[in-house]
Amino acid sequence: MEPVTSESSDLYPVTRLAAVREATAEAGLSALLLTPGPDLRYVTGYSALPLERLTCLAVPADGDAFLMVPRLELPAAQHSPAARLGVEFVPWDETDDPYAHVAKRLGRADTVGLADHMWAMQSLRFRSAMPDTEQVLAGTVLAALRSRKSPAEAAALREAGAAIDAVHAQVPGLLRPGRTEREVGRDIADAIIASGHATVDFVIVASGPNGASPHHDLSDRVIEPGDAVVVDIGGTMPSGYCSDSTRTYSVGEPPADFTAYYDVLQRAQDAACAAVRPGVTCESIDAAARQVIAEAGYGDHFIHRTGHGIGIETHEEPYIVSGNTTPLAEGNAFSVEPGIYLPGRHGARIEDIVICGAHGGERLNNRPRDLVVV
Amino acid sequence: MEPVTSESSDLYPVTRLAAVREATAEAGLSALLLTPGPDLRYVTGYSALPLERLTCLAVPADGDAFLMVPRLELPAAQHSPAARLGVEFVPWDETDDPYAHVAKRLGRADTVGLADHMWAMQSLRFRSAMPDTEQVLAGTVLAALRSRKSPAEAAALREAGAAIDAVHAQVPGLLRPGRTEREVGRDIADAIIASGHATVDFVIVASGPNGASPHHDLSDRVIEPGDAVVVDIGGTMPSGYCSDSTRTYSVGEPPADFTAYYDVLQRAQDAACAAVRPGVTCESIDAAARQVIAEAGYGDHFIHRTGHGIGIETHEEPYIVSGNTTPLAEGNAFSVEPGIYLPGRHGARIEDIVICGAHGGERLNNRPRDLVVV
Repeated sequence: MEPVTSESSDLYPVTRLAAVREATAEAGLSALLLTPGPDLRYVTGYSALPLERLTCLAVPADGDAFLMVPRLELPAAQHSPAARLGVEFVPWDETDDPYAHVAKRLGRADTVGLADHMWAMQSLRFRSAMPDTEQVLAGTVLAALRSRKSPAEAAALREAGAAIDAVHAQVPGLLRPGRTEREVGRDIADAIIASGHATVDFVIVASGPNGASPHHDLSDRVIEPGDAVVVDIGGTMPSGYCSDSTRTYSVGEPPADFTAYYDVLQRAQDAACAAVRPGVTCESIDAAARQVIAEAGYGDHFIHRTGHGIGIETHEEPYIVSGNTTPLAEGNAFSVEPGIYLPGRHGARIEDIVICGAHGGERLNNRPRDLVVV
Repeated sequence: MEPVTSESSDLYPVTRLAAVREATAEAGLSALLLTPGPDLRYVTGYSALPLERLTCLAVPADGDAFLMVPRLELPAAQHSPAARLGVEFVPWDETDDPYAHVAKRLGRADTVGLADHMWAMQSLRFRSAMPDTEQVLAGTVLAALRSRKSPAEAAALREAGAAIDAVHAQVPGLLRPGRTEREVGRDIADAIIASGHATVDFVIVASGPNGASPHHDLSDRVIEPGDAVVVDIGGTMPSGYCSDSTRTYSVGEPPADFTAYYDVLQRAQDAACAAVRPGVTCESIDAAARQVIAEAGYGDHFIHRTGHGIGIETHEEPYIVSGNTTPLAEGNAFSVEPGIYLPGRHGARIEDIVICGAHGGERLNNRPRDLVVV
């Protein structure tokens, strides 16, 4: 339950807390309030489970951080990477009000940033305890930090990419006519663990007409000769970093109308990857893929954004979507995954994780992107 | 990823939505806003994953419910149990603002109830989109409904209880001196799945001094002769309902100071179970256990509440804790799990799930509660 070990101190450096406090002050926030979830994990390395009892790291812009922790979680917290940070642990007992305690210790606070995944159960209690304090998202401070991966984080994502590539290498051997999506999916889940992941996060095996639904997962549909099959899979490594990669396979010779657009899709995905470099906007990467698909007449069939950031969450900043004018920065890691979907017939998607380097993008997934006929 | 099937329509009856709407009106709320998580699952049977893209069932007190759903999740939603409810599905596209759309459709709304687990990412967007609307927890409406289990739900919890009992029956064979907590924990996790659970939710194997930390999970500590070992385990069944049971074992003859309090603990747990009946307060069940322990002189060593409700979450209402004056009602299901912990030495806990019937409590866990010496 504690994927982060002391070996990964370069993934969760103790210097990070000071950087977060500084960014909090620069953003004009009084404090961050970080309940269990990816924001807390990023800052401390502590992967506490979200529970109804409040665990919360308070990071004042001007003052010392402290961790409110239920007394019975105290030993777990003391054995977690959070113990390295030298922050005060404040245990609370079953009949205490930990929200009032945080409010009192913070004192005057104009604006606090809440962990993006903080439950309403907790954000509304903080609102009652601090009625004059404006609540915003901690993401306004943390997203810029979290989305620029350090060399250690980039290495962890590279390791995750290689592990999921090793699973895709086995997929052609698993896709046989007569098997159901669910049977293939079970084998893929086993392979995700065998390849070194700590958890299986999702397994999409979308065959034939199911391939036209981008978030179809698994069904009892039997795979038939001539099916195109979209396989979109990912997991979380022991480091806490995630993998996510899609390839589309064809079981036997694919239909002619499928072949017609698969090449378009491959060119679109290449174009978006080639457009990656610091300073260009997120939406321009989306546009690079979309333009190729639209020019070939399939614009109405590319019905989702081009990608999402990835790190300690499968979906995080930056989002590669029309309207996002944030410029890419060195260290950004995100998926490039255009798709083309023909409702009732079939679909295709190609997805690699890409890291933005100083001069261009580095793909972390390297399985062949040509259509694999199995 | 979709543990709920159409077979379980008695667990998620289509009539529930009307009851929820009525309770929403009675509570004086304008609407409930239910994002993915246990509240949405309870009302619809739809176990959508929480994602940054908004999925939200809006249940107006006065008007028709509708489900906002990202367009690429539409096929999954249409194949989910939510499709049985006859509510309108409102798909939104990648560049739409679904929060503004919900606000517009609801019109004037004085107070909305947010799913207890709604992310701050979403609750703050709703606040911006509906600045004059007060936000409270959907739990103010749903907790009373969710905590009174239907006969079908009680049967699902009984099935979960029998499954985890079958795991505890194997534990004496796994606890051998020389094995580490982690090795034993891995075998228990396998047994949780083999016993019919869909997922392993937690495995605590707390040996010797680790037993004094109630939420210790697993470590590389080697189990030694004379160790008391607290084993607290649970999972989620394919029905979506959870199990949770604790037994304390002794590997060889236990220390004398352990034996001295184990009998106290067993009497305390019996007393609390015996006190269960409709109309008595939640805190009186806590007091029934606490009194036995305090009278024996161990009051300072029982450092947590006596229990928590259980159903489609491992921890939900009602909480069996001092200060909770809510009366028990027929159908309430909760843990009774007093513990005694001697820091640095050892600890013990005994936990059964109990359902409140018309005339008393029914224990859903029935493994022996006498100390098992293995």
